[in-house]
Amino acid sequence: MTEINVLNKKFQKEINSGVTSLVLLSVMAQAEEPLYGYQIAKQLSNDEQNAPAMKQGALYPVLRSLEKGSLLKSMVEPSASGPPRRYYSITSNGRKILTEWIKLWEKTKSFVDNTLGGE
Amino acid sequence: MTEINVLNKKFQKEINSGVTSLVLLSVMAQAEEPLYGYQIAKQLSNDEQNAPAMKQGALYPVLRSLEKGSLLKSMVEPSASGPPRRYYSITSNGRKILTEWIKLWEKTKSFVDNTLGGE
Repeated sequence: MTEINVLNKKFQKEINSGVTSLVLLSVMAQAEEPLYGYQIAKQLSNDEQNAPAMKQGALYPVLRSLEKGSLLKSMVEPSASGPPRRYYSITSNGRKILTEWIKLWEKTKSFVDNTLGGE
Repeated sequence: MTEINVLNKKFQKEINSGVTSLVLLSVMAQAEEPLYGYQIAKQLSNDEQNAPAMKQGALYPVLRSLEKGSLLKSMVEPSASGPPRRYYSITSNGRKILTEWIKLWEKTKSFVDNTLGGE
């Protein structure tokens, strides 16, 4: 792995640490029923091109953290085909916070894009 | 401080951890001469509205980290009006990486915005 790749991976990881919460909360706000981890991951990888190195394994800690903050809730259901599954759904508090986060995301985007403007 | 504010601050901090490197590298790529910390911070706060909680104190560790990765270089110069100042400038490696990071930023932006699309 070249030096450039190492720095790119570090950069992408840092950016992802912020946007993963936003993206997961948004997926859950649009879900019509509770989803388990693999279903959520699939929603994000529908367009392989578009998902910048957001690996399924990276989603679980974020789901747990969103639940800890009462933005998501979950329940475990038995599965016919394997171990029990944890189904997540958004809380009303989660919907409120999502609206705030979208505003902060828009603000951050235009701040960064203004700074890059000279490039 | 309300619960919402705590969650918003955490979210903004996570997002900033990625974009601060990008923004600083971009400012230094556009600088016509070496800049010291306060001058760099001023470039970012020209439009108070636009700088989402990116505090001056948060910039210094990122400047040091960019220097450690050979994306910036620095030298210390005496100052007539106080303690010596550390002046930063971008390296040719830094310019190369900036091009990569801008691509990753664009990719991340469209990924997030696609996901938010349903909102």
